[in-house]
Formats: sequence, C-alpha cells, structure tokens
Amino acid sequence: MNEKVFRDPIHNYIHVNHKVIYDLINTSEFQRLRRIKQVPTTAFTFHGSEHSRFSHCLGVYEIARQVIGIFEQDYRNIWNADESLLVMVAALLHDVGHGAYSHTFERLFETDHERYTQEIITSPETQINTILRQVAPDFPDKVASVINHTYPNKQVVELISSQIDCDRMDYLLRDSYYTAAHYGQFDLTRILRVIRPIKNGIAFARNGMHAVEDYIVSRFQMYMQVYFHPASRAMELLLQQLLKRAKELYQEQPSFFEQSSPHLLPFFKKEQTLADYLALDDGVMNTYFQSWMHSSDVILSDLASRFINRKVFKSVTFDEKDEDKLEVLRKYVAQVGFDPNYYTGIHVNFDLPYDIYRPEKAEPRTQIEILQKDGSLAELSTLSPIVRAISGETYGDRRFYFPKEMLSEDDLFADIKKSFQAHLNNEHFIGN
Amino acid sequence: MNEKVFRDPIHNYIHVNHKVIYDLINTSEFQRLRRIKQVPTTAFTFHGSEHSRFSHCLGVYEIARQVIGIFEQDYRNIWNADESLLVMVAALLHDVGHGAYSHTFERLFETDHERYTQEIITSPETQINTILRQVAPDFPDKVASVINHTYPNKQVVELISSQIDCDRMDYLLRDSYYTAAHYGQFDLTRILRVIRPIKNGIAFARNGMHAVEDYIVSRFQMYMQVYFHPASRAMELLLQQLLKRAKELYQEQPSFFEQSSPHLLPFFKKEQTLADYLALDDGVMNTYFQSWMHSSDVILSDLASRFINRKVFKSVTFDEKDEDKLEVLRKYVAQVGFDPNYYTGIHVNFDLPYDIYRPEKAEPRTQIEILQKDGSLAELSTLSPIVRAISGETYGDRRFYFPKEMLSEDDLFADIKKSFQAHLNNEHFIGN
Amino acid sequence: MNEKVFRDPIHNYIHVNHKVIYDLINTSEFQRLRRIKQVPTTAFTFHGSEHSRFSHCLGVYEIARQVIGIFEQDYRNIWNADESLLVMVAALLHDVGHGAYSHTFERLFETDHERYTQEIITSPETQINTILRQVAPDFPDKVASVINHTYPNKQVVELISSQIDCDRMDYLLRDSYYTAAHYGQFDLTRILRVIRPIKNGIAFARNGMHAVEDYIVSRFQMYMQVYFHPASRAMELLLQQLLKRAKELYQEQPSFFEQSSPHLLPFFKKEQTLADYLALDDGVMNTYFQSWMHSSDVILSDLASRFINRKVFKSVTFDEKDEDKLEVLRKYVAQVGFDPNYYTGIHVNFDLPYDIYRPEKAEPRTQIEILQKDGSLAELSTLSPIVRAISGETYGDRRFYFPKEMLSEDDLFADIKKSFQAHLNNEHFIGN
Amino acid sequence: MNEKVFRDPIHNYIHVNHKVIYDLINTSEFQRLRRIKQVPTTAFTFHGSEHSRFSHCLGVYEIARQVIGIFEQDYRNIWNADESLLVMVAALLHDVGHGAYSHTFERLFETDHERYTQEIITSPETQINTILRQVAPDFPDKVASVINHTYPNKQVVELISSQIDCDRMDYLLRDSYYTAAHYGQFDLTRILRVIRPIKNGIAFARNGMHAVEDYIVSRFQMYMQVYFHPASRAMELLLQQLLKRAKELYQEQPSFFEQSSPHLLPFFKKEQTLADYLALDDGVMNTYFQSWMHSSDVILSDLASRFINRKVFKSVTFDEKDEDKLEVLRKYVAQVGFDPNYYTGIHVNFDLPYDIYRPEKAEPRTQIEILQKDGSLAELSTLSPIVRAISGETYGDRRFYFPKEMLSEDDLFADIKKSFQAHLNNEHFIGN
Repeated sequence: MNEKVFRDPIHNYIHVNHKVIYDLINTSEFQRLRRIKQVPTTAFTFHGSEHSRFSHCLGVYEIARQVIGIFEQDYRNIWNADESLLVMVAALLHDVGHGAYSHTFERLFETDHERYTQEIITSPETQINTILRQVAPDFPDKVASVINHTYPNKQVVELISSQIDCDRMDYLLRDSYYTAAHYGQFDLTRILRVIRPIKNGIAFARNGMHAVEDYIVSRFQMYMQVYFHPASRAMELLLQQLLKRAKELYQEQPSFFEQSSPHLLPFFKKEQTLADYLALDDGVMNTYFQSWMHSSDVILSDLASRFINRKVFKSVTFDEKDEDKLEVLRKYVAQVGFDPNYYTGIHVNFDLPYDIYRPEKAEPRTQIEILQKDGSLAELSTLSPIVRAISGETYGDRRFYFPKEMLSEDDLFADIKKSFQAHLNNEHFIGN
Repeated sequence: MNEKVFRDPIHNYIHVNHKVIYDLINTSEFQRLRRIKQVPTTAFTFHGSEHSRFSHCLGVYEIARQVIGIFEQDYRNIWNADESLLVMVAALLHDVGHGAYSHTFERLFETDHERYTQEIITSPETQINTILRQVAPDFPDKVASVINHTYPNKQVVELISSQIDCDRMDYLLRDSYYTAAHYGQFDLTRILRVIRPIKNGIAFARNGMHAVEDYIVSRFQMYMQVYFHPASRAMELLLQQLLKRAKELYQEQPSFFEQSSPHLLPFFKKEQTLADYLALDDGVMNTYFQSWMHSSDVILSDLASRFINRKVFKSVTFDEKDEDKLEVLRKYVAQVGFDPNYYTGIHVNFDLPYDIYRPEKAEPRTQIEILQKDGSLAELSTLSPIVRAISGETYGDRRFYFPKEMLSEDDLFADIKKSFQAHLNNEHFIGN
Repeated sequence: MNEKVFRDPIHNYIHVNHKVIYDLINTSEFQRLRRIKQVPTTAFTFHGSEHSRFSHCLGVYEIARQVIGIFEQDYRNIWNADESLLVMVAALLHDVGHGAYSHTFERLFETDHERYTQEIITSPETQINTILRQVAPDFPDKVASVINHTYPNKQVVELISSQIDCDRMDYLLRDSYYTAAHYGQFDLTRILRVIRPIKNGIAFARNGMHAVEDYIVSRFQMYMQVYFHPASRAMELLLQQLLKRAKELYQEQPSFFEQSSPHLLPFFKKEQTLADYLALDDGVMNTYFQSWMHSSDVILSDLASRFINRKVFKSVTFDEKDEDKLEVLRKYVAQVGFDPNYYTGIHVNFDLPYDIYRPEKAEPRTQIEILQKDGSLAELSTLSPIVRAISGETYGDRRFYFPKEMLSEDDLFADIKKSFQAHLNNEHFIGN
Repeated sequence: MNEKVFRDPIHNYIHVNHKVIYDLINTSEFQRLRRIKQVPTTAFTFHGSEHSRFSHCLGVYEIARQVIGIFEQDYRNIWNADESLLVMVAALLHDVGHGAYSHTFERLFETDHERYTQEIITSPETQINTILRQVAPDFPDKVASVINHTYPNKQVVELISSQIDCDRMDYLLRDSYYTAAHYGQFDLTRILRVIRPIKNGIAFARNGMHAVEDYIVSRFQMYMQVYFHPASRAMELLLQQLLKRAKELYQEQPSFFEQSSPHLLPFFKKEQTLADYLALDDGVMNTYFQSWMHSSDVILSDLASRFINRKVFKSVTFDEKDEDKLEVLRKYVAQVGFDPNYYTGIHVNFDLPYDIYRPEKAEPRTQIEILQKDGSLAELSTLSPIVRAISGETYGDRRFYFPKEMLSEDDLFADIKKSFQAHLNNEHFIGN
C-alpha cells in the first residue's frame, strides 16, 4: 500500500503503511470515535480540550509504530517481527469500546468499556472483526488478549499497558497540548531512543532515565492539576445525578423516554446489545439531555439544563474522618429547597503516580526497569531520587459538591446560607 | 468583579474583568457554541481541528480586549474609552448566530447566520439580549450595528470586521494550531504593538509592516492549503446532497422525518423560529443523520452513512471553459448505477487574499493603511512588494466530485470506469 | 522616552520605557556581557546553548518589569511605586560583574563576581555608575544593597534573589530553550498572575500553587540533567587544571605570559584592578588559550589544546567513603604517562532543590509563602506533596575524572588500562 | 559505531552513526566553528541569535542524513547508496572554511571562504583531510567537487546547493529559532516526505508543493526582515570601515599591529597561509578590536570602540538615481567633524527569492521541479501562483549610513544638522 498520512499536532504526521491499519481506521466502529470526546468533562474547564478518542487512538498507534520500527531495525535478535502488526493493531484498537461519557455512564449502567472493546474485536458482526479475521482466523482473539493482558509475550503487552505505555504517552502529550496545561509535556523522542525489548518485557537504557523520570513527574502533575480539577469533577457528578434521576423516572414515565431518548431504553431495561452501545455517542447523549430540558419533572429538567449550560456545582475538600459530619451541609442544602440526593454529592479522586511490583496486590503494577551498561536491570525508583520521593503513595482529595447558589447571600435564605458557609474555610470543610 | 481566566492554547489565558462579559459567556446561547465545531468539514481531513466556535469566540474577544487595553493606555486622545466595552462585546458575539454546518445548511435552507446573530442580540427572548439591555436600553442595537458594519465609528467596526480584524487573527492562529498546518502562524504580539486608532479607522505603524505582510501571506496559505482542501470540500458536497435528498423526500414521507429529525421540520416547511434554529447543533444534526442511515430510501440512507462514516467523494479540477463537457463524466457515473444528481457535484472555491479599496465594487474592501513616521498614511500594497504581488487577484479552483468507486477497476463495470478515467490526467479533467 | 523593544525568544519582546534602563544597556560594561556566555561549559555538551549573559540579563529585567507593572496596577496599597525603577535596575544589573568562565576563574584567582557587580555599580569610574548617579546620588548604593540583600524592603530583595526570583525564572526558561532540554519550562504567565507583594516580602496566591510547584520541579530537573551533566563538568575541571598550570608556570616563564596573555598578568600577580577584570571576556580568554597551545610546556600546551578542541575527560561516580581509595586510579593514570595532578580530578555537585527557612543555618533560605483565601500564609511544602517529597534534601554526585585514553585498549599500556578499568562498573568506582 | 547524539533545538537530536562523521566533528578545524557566529552582525540586532557555525553545520548534516535515509529506504532503484556518505560529509563540511565576520573580512582582504573550504578539505596538513583520505585516496577531492558543484551526479550536488538545499533549510529554521523571528519556519517534515531523487537531480512530489511554496516565502521574509535589517548592516559597514582604517594605518605603524593583532599581519601583507586563516575566529578578532580601542589614532580607536560597544550608524534609503546627490549629506557630516571616508557609507542589499533556470545567466539557477502523478516534471512557478508572483524579481534597498550624532539637535552644530535632516523624510533621502 502507498503510505497514507494524517496531519497530527502531537506527532506531526501519523504514518499508515499497512492496508489492515488503514481499513480498520475506515470502519464505522472506529470512525464513531470521532464523535466521542477524549476528556468530555475536562473540556468544560479547559475549553481547548475538545479532541476526540479518534485522535488519541491514532496517536497511540503512531507511537507503537515508531517503537516497532526501532525494534525491527535494531533489536532483531530479541524482537520477533511477526508481533509487529499485532502491536500496532492493539494500540489502534485499545480504546475502541469507549462510549459517550464512559466513566460516569459505566457507573450508572454497570457497563464496562473494556468489555465492549473485547466484544467489538471478537464479535463477527463488526466491520473491525471482519478485517481482523482476514489477517488470520485467530487474529481477533490475539488482539483481544493483548488488550486484556493475557497474551503470553510480555513485550507486546507492556507496550500497550504498563506504567509507561503507548496509551499513556499519547494522552499525556495530547491532553497537554489541547488543554494548554504544559505540565504533561515530556521528551518522547528521547524515550523512543532508549526503549528496549528485553527477555520478558520492556526496559529503558540507563542514559535515558531522566526522560522516564520526567514522564512520571509529568503524569503526576497532569493528574493533580488537570484530570482532578474540581470543576471538571463537578460536571461528572452533575451528569451522574442527571442519569440517576432519568433511570429512576423511567419506571414512572417510560413513554417520555421512548420519545426523547430511544437508544437509552435498552440500558434502562438492562437488555442492551452491542449495537445499542455503538448507537450512543456524545452528540446523541447531548441531544437526549437537550430533550430532557423540556421534561415536566423539575429535577430532571433542571439538572439537564445545568449540564447543557454548564452550571457547575461548587465544592470543598473534606477530611476522611469528617465524612459523616457532612450531613449538616446536606441539611442546609435541603432547607434552601434543593433535594440533596440530586444536588449534593461526594467525589473522591486519588492516584498512585508510580509503584514497584507488589505481587501481593490485587492488580500488581509492572515496575519500570532500567537497563544498565553491564546488562543488568534496576528498578526505576532505586536510581531516581525524585521518583523514589513520590512512589508508592497516593495523592488526591475528597470533595463535597453542592449548588453554587449556597454561596450567594442576597436572598430569602440568607441566614441558612450563612450557617452553611460557616462550615467552610479556605475551601475546606470544618468538621467541628 | 474579580478577574476570571480561561486557559487557552492560543492566547495562554483569556482574561475576563467585566461582569457583562462573564454573564454573556454563561448564557445558554453562548454555551451552545461549545456544541458547534469551528471547521466541521475540515475536521474530517485534519483530524486535530475538532475545536468549537466557543473557543474561537473567546479568542476573538481576548484579542479585542488586548487591543482596547493598548488603545486606552497609549491613545487616549484619539480613542474614546466609552467604546471599549462595545468592542469587546461585539468581538465576543460576532459569531453567536453560527449554527451546525452553517455554510452548507444556509445554502439549502436559505437561512443566514449573520441574520441570526443580529436576532440573538436584539430579540427580547434571549438571555444575551437581557444582559445587554442591562448595560443600556440601546446597547443591543449598538452591538448589532457594529457587527453589521453600520455603526458610525469606523475604529470600532474595523476591529471587528476588515481585512485584518480580531476575528480573522484568532481563527488563523487557532485553526493553524489545531490542524497542525503551521502556515497560519503570524506575529500577533508585533501586530498588537503597532496597531493604532486613527481618525477614521485603524492603521498600523510602519515599523510593524512586515508583521502585517506576514499575516496576509499566512491567511493566503491557510486558504489554499487548509480551507480549500479537496477532501473537506468533498464532505461539504456530500452533506449538501444529503440534505437536498432529505428535503425532497420530506414531501413524500413526512412522518419518517417527524420521528427521526423533529427539529429540522420547521426548516423543511420554511416556518422556522429563532428557537428552532438554536435547537440545532452538530450533535443534534449527526443524531438525525444516524437515524437516516436506517431510512428505507436507499439514496438517503447511503448518503447519510457515507457522511457519518467519512466516505469521501474523489475529485478532479476542471477549467471553467470545460464545465459543459463534464456531462460525459456524469453519464459514466450513471451507467455504473449512481444517480448523478446526488453522487456528483461541482465545488468552486476562490479567494481574494487582499485588495485595495474599490468603491465601485458591491462590497468594497477596507484597505490596510500603514502609518508613516511623518504621520501620513500609505496603503499596504504600495509599500510591500509581496502583498502587491498577490493583491487584487483571486486564487482557487473548480472541482468535479464523484464516488471513489469510479477509480477502482476490478468489477463488472471495469470498462465504463476505464472510459471515465480516460478523461482524467494528473487529477485534472481533460475536456476534449 | 519612546518605547524600545528587543526581540527575544523567551519573552517575545523586551520592553524598555525608561531612559535609565536604555542608557544602562548601552554602557560598555553592559555590552561586554554579549561576549560572555551564560553557560560556557554547558555549551560544550548542549551545543545550542551559546547564549550570553547579555540576553539573560535583559530577560531578568523583563520579568521584573512585568511583575512591577502588575504590582503598580493591582496592589498600590501595599506596593510603593517609588521602588519600581530600583527593582528593574537591580534585575538588569544583578549579574553585571560576571566574567569569563566565572565559576572556575574565581576558584583559581580568588575573585568574586558578586563583589565585582557591587564595584561596577558603585565605582565612579564606570559608565553604569554615572548613569545611576543621575537618578539620585545614593541610587548606586541602593541598587548595590538590593543585590547584596541588605536593602530593608524585603519585597524588593526577594524579587531579585530568593528561591523563586526573576533571575532564576529567566535562566531556567532561557537555558531550557537554548539547550533544548525542555525540562526547564514552567508556566511563567501563571506565576505572574499569582505573585503578590505582602507585608514583608513576596507570596503567591493559592490558586497558582501548581505553577510554583512545577517551577521547583523544573529547576530540580535542570540541575540534575543539564547543569550537572558529567561532560560539562569535565570541561570545567579541564579549565581549572589549565589555569592552575598557567599560574604555576608564570613564576618560571613570566615573559611567555606577558606576550601571550597580557590581561591575565595582574591576576597571576594578585594585583588586578576593576579595569583588568573588565578587559577579560570569553573571546580574550580563548585567544590566550589558543596562544598557550604553542607553549613549550607540554602539559600547558596539551591541556590548552584539549580545552580548545573539546577533548573531554571521562568520569565515574564514587561513594564519599571511597574517596581515599581513588589513589589507585591516579596511580594507573600516572603509569600511562599522565601527571595525575593535572590529568585527574574530583568534581562534586550537589543541589538543595527547595528548603524551608532555617534560621540556624549559615545562609538561611527565604521560604516560599502561599497566600490563602482567608489571607493567611502557608509555607509551600505544607501544601504541596511533591515539593514536600524533595525539600530539605540535597541531590547530586561525586565524580572522578581522568583522560579518555584510559578507556581505550589497543596500545602499549593495555594491561595497565585493563587494571584501571577493573575498578569501574556501570560508570561507578568500585572501591574494594 | 554506537550511535552518538547531540541535543539540538531545531532537529531535536543530531544522530551520528558513522565513525567518519564523528571523527570529522572532533577535528580542530571543525571545533573551531564553535568560535564563529553564524550571523555575527545580526546578533547585534536580534540578541538571541548568538549561535555558531558549528551548530548550523551539524544541522545541515542532520537534514542530509534524514534525506539519505529516505532515499536509501524508498528509492533504491534511482539512488545509489554509495553516494550517501559523500552527501553527509559534504553537508557537514560545506561551510568549514567560514571565518570570523567572513563577508566583511573577505571584501577587505580579498579572501574567499569557499576557497578555504576547498583547501581545508584537500590540504594534507589538516586533520579533516587525514580522516577523509582514510575513506579513499580520492575522497577529499570528491567532497570538494560536490561543494564546488562540479561533481557529475547532480542529485548529490543539488542536495548541498540549489534553491532548496540542506544548507538553506537548516539556516532558515535555525536563524528563525534563535532570532525569534518566526517568519523562517516552514514544514521540514513535509518536505522530507516529498523530496525525490530523479534522473538528473532532485524533485518534490506534487502533493507536497505547498510546503515548498511556504519554504520559498519563508526564505523571502527572512531576507527582507532579518538578514537585511538596517541595524545589522550598520554594524557590517562599521566593521568594514574599521578594518579599512587598520589596513591603511598598518603601513605607517606596523609595530602597533604586530603587538595588538599578530594574526592579522599576514593579511595586511597579503601573504597569509591556511594556518593564518584558521588562527582567526570571532574571539581573536574582538580581542584585537579591543586592543585597537587604545590606539593613538583617533579614528581607529573610535571606530573600534563603536563596534565593540555597539554604537550603530543610522541610515536612510535612497533611490539609485540619487546616488550622486548623496554628496551633500557627506559634506554636512564632514562639517560636523566626522571624516566621511570612515563615518559614512553605502550598503546595498538585494535578493532574488526564486528564479527559473536561465542558461544565459552567469550563474544560472537550478530551478525547482515538481514531480506530477503521471511522472512528468513541472517547474514550481508554473504551478504555484504565489511563487510566480515573486519569482524572477529582486527585492531589497540601498542605504546611506552616517553617525547617529547627525540626528541629535542640541549642540554647536545644530544648524548643520538641521540642513542635513532637511534632506530626509520617512527615513528616505530626498534627492532634490
């Protein structure tokens, strides 16, 4: 095939040389990713980050392609070129099961985008499966097994998911570019120069350790400063409350939802198929929410309107030990006239920026190995003081959300609001 | 008001110091721009350019704010600070009437986004109008008159629309950043240093002429290389044919469209209101197109599917004199089984990169004036050889579009396709 | 004065609005900084970093100018505008006493660039002093006192030197740009938005803490990865040995040095004046070294040639406890024919990335204060987990340097070299 | 050889895989380029552009290496891999004969950096020649013939010098980065994707024509806005007058110059050798000029001081027809006390941004060929309207320089200066 290229702000160009890759990009399941934002709630805070999963998936593929190119050229003795296409395909498709507002949606409807990724790859009814089967009858299963970590060759698995994989490398650079929060930048070129296939996985040459270190720190900063931003989490919580209200209301008013949001019905009834899932995207969901703004249920219509028109909840942090005491805040919210079941909520975000391999854990991490001059391996945090300083610990906060109206002062409820505000200091909840 | 800021990839931060501006941003009419892409068909070619009108409008406002800040500080004798808020508001709202896929939509439904902009500003039913009226009863009309060029102070009008206005400056930088086509970059900082209010408009100091020159060249290159890209225009044409088919079919099958695309009905019936217009956005339109993919009408469902799944038409350029001869190509297309009324089309794109003021023209341009050391003005192209070289001329091409299938060779229609292809050379139509 | 601007890659433009600043830039003492590299030995490793002290000093001034502009506009109640010019002048001149290869030079000749800075400012024989006296007779002394930290207003002093001052902010951004080691980038715009004058110094608003955090991390990474680069330190060590040899040789062969390096004589004799110091710059020093390449002393000529032609020493790290054992390596170096007094050396580099204020220390740090919503201050590391993780600790290493020839194998001394190499593993010295 | 890399701001990394290349970089003749600025007089105007010929030469090599890599991989049928090393070496060495302030120096001393480049490559006394001879006895001559355009394979020659060669591509990007004049940026990645070896030279695929177009425009803008900047040319002219004075004065006072500027003597006497030429660099020349500041000749010492301390001459443009009339200005300059032979001068700068091949010309250009889909070639300006608009024409201006003092007003010579100024308007000389 003649090489095709896609102009890309992160990698300059995405290069496609395999017909399989090109055909996969052109399937309806993959093109659908154009209609799903990469960070949909973050975009309400960082307006620039309106990019889609489509762009991200191309980017992950491109990083994988570059890694493979280096492995094939310089490490033929230890890298099996027969695995190359598999890596590129798995990179391209690793997120193909992502849906509209996935994280919130999954919580409410007990779905799982990773299971959908598996299904899209292995179900004979998809265009993607048809193309993969043309490579080899067992190729779809192979791709699926790479994505769910069961593929035997750890070199392949770790390129797609580990503490420093193609997925994370692309999203840090991309989200950084689009949000304009430059913290996520790191030296990808250098990492590509020092990445090495080793016997049972992936390592990085010692002379590039600083680039790996910088990647860990960048990732940490993106979590603290972008992904955990209080306003974005407010929008997540609002969406959660909106879907919860709709799900409950459906029992009473099914016909309203049949009219206004047909493709959500199977989810309300817990009888959804793959086709139902694929029918949903950001635009479809927002179209439904816009219909709900005209519902006769005041809570549904108000929450929908707040979401569509970006009326963010406000929040304060609180200490874990004080969680029970938050009831006092909920009480004031209710007194002002907001049902606290829908108008307040707790959002907890914690991240473990890096950890060594701990076999006793439920999901042990694959630690990052540094390849030294004499051929021995050393785990990253034994060499890097800065990684050591942040590894093994989680960082984040607990937030209590409530309507912005609780912070205004000029109305009938001024006294109640004052009492409410008396519990807050420097945006933190004072428990006593 | 405490200053609010929005992180922005182009201007680093958007600064908001006026409550009026902040309230306008928070209206439902303005938040709606988040759901409308800035360059929706371009995004099918340059996948990175998924940014919205919302981002662009904030950017235009920010440039205006910076210009005004300089005028207020350094040119008080000639700049009236009472006009400052007006400029910022007009900059923010100049595009507020843009709708989903505006350019194509307007052609089909004889609507006009500029008229909608006027209406959103002046109609008492909008949130925007309510806020503007709080400034002064005649403020909405003033804002509207700036945008439609009838406001008497030309300084104000030219900042919002002229050959080098805040709108163009933002979209060149922004589209350039998001498409990754760096041609659109120019030195905004320098231009801000040399922009000057003059008696009857806006000028640029002589020592910054090269930055203005570079802006003109950048704009020219963005048109040639990004906005006029054949693949994006293919998607525009496809959309046009899809909407045309829907409009015709509505006469026969109204109930299908009542179900599948309720908010388009008023447009089919030519009885739309402002509320109808505001109900449409990219997500709503795409949701409709996705429904149409299940229509019983094969042309409608196929065109919808081609649009949603990005199956671009191919094209060749042709000379104006050969337009009549294109019938031969349409004939072959029909023989292969595609109705040429829907599966072929002509797309003509021409741009006049810069022109002097020509009062005899229907829409004369406001030429760019350079302010010389002795206080006299000189029109840009008299000083700049490169602007002179491209001014007054239009650049662009005429393209004939057809299904990609006409270029394949391996089927029943191989002979017809070969005859078709015999008329093409180096992607150009050979008339004879 | 009409504003003058200097195009600058870091700040886009340097703006000069005060005649005093413009005149200072045009003095011979300040123009001399064009001939002194900012990071002369680093440039041997990162070839891009060939920028001068001149560029850096303009940059420090520009940051100071921007800070002052914000203070004057928004914090008039607490910032005294009479201090503004003082801050800008101190920022511009804080490094004016830097000389050629300062750090190494000072060690050898017991000079001190900070004392020269004071002298250039206060000595009546300089052009700089003449200009400063025109502002006010005591102005030179005021400027000098800001730079040596004795000026009573801590707001002024901390802008010029503290753990986050205009000097450091410029050099991190600038050295990062020129070396292409992007680690040094941080969000200056954000820091400028949240910097605040407080009663007794400078603080940063809570909502910008992440930018301050990122600055600390960036600075840390630049030290670890750029400033402490082993190859640059090799060049420093080589220069040190070269100057040591010259100084010793001068006693024996004064006439050679009178001919080849006249402006160094006063330093050899310890009778240098300010004029002697100002006569030296990188070009003059290199011209001397080039002359020394023709010396009859083989050590002098060889070391000069190695320096001029960038023949870097190699190095290994070693543990503090093993320092005495390095003698074994020196012995092998001597056996191969290199005098270890000149051809080996130890270079120790440690940095304390951040620390709280510790009054018991010899040079206590001014800790970074974060201004909270309720007006209270909190020390940075109490709020930032990542700063806490690295604060109060020093990072760096000890290196033993030796001629690259010790690592080759193909000659007469192969056995000695093998014995030498047997003490090294993974670029570390094995003591036992 | 293990790959070596150099961190580079333009190309991210310079990759060296051939021992020959690495050894050439480490020669004293090549390392000497670290001490020669790429744009020495431009750095007086754009202070950021302090980069050296060393950096540029590495960059030209890196572009060549990338081109060759593509040719070897994709165009084996038409590209002979035996030529690859030759291209890389010629790219690396094409400027190795550049000396301190070459352009001005050559004019005064009738030397020629291109001839020195040839000599450094072919003279058996250089380290470079020794390394080249190890490749093959005739390799030095081959390299030299590529650089002087006589090598028979035009593919090789055009990569090194043509209207779009590796040299120009690097210096535009590099000078643009360091000056911060972004006009010089163009899409190198795209150009590398479309560059093709053809039978008798180099061409560019049709689908990358816009990148070539943008390169031509960028180059044009860099000439107009950076290289032809009046202040930089003022410094060139000043240097020229300084050297002229020195050369004349040498006849009278040889001993002063023997002391102060020994390595210039052979040039004054026209008996210089290659070794003499290599002994000069920016630092050596500036050291000499600093000595001349103490000359008893007032003109020499004043001009030296003006150059070292950057006292730029001012200038006005003039029309060619008025050149004779400039005598009136010189007369006034003399009346004020400046010898017009040294204190005034004419500087003419013109550039032909692009031209087709014109065999009748003394130095015909190699026109840029575009490779079309059907394999035919088309000359660039036949396809590109913007290149056509500027091709075949020269752009630039003529300037008359004089001391800045002529523009002040407040002294004894006020009347003479007024008469002088009466001949100037908008920085242009009025002839009548």
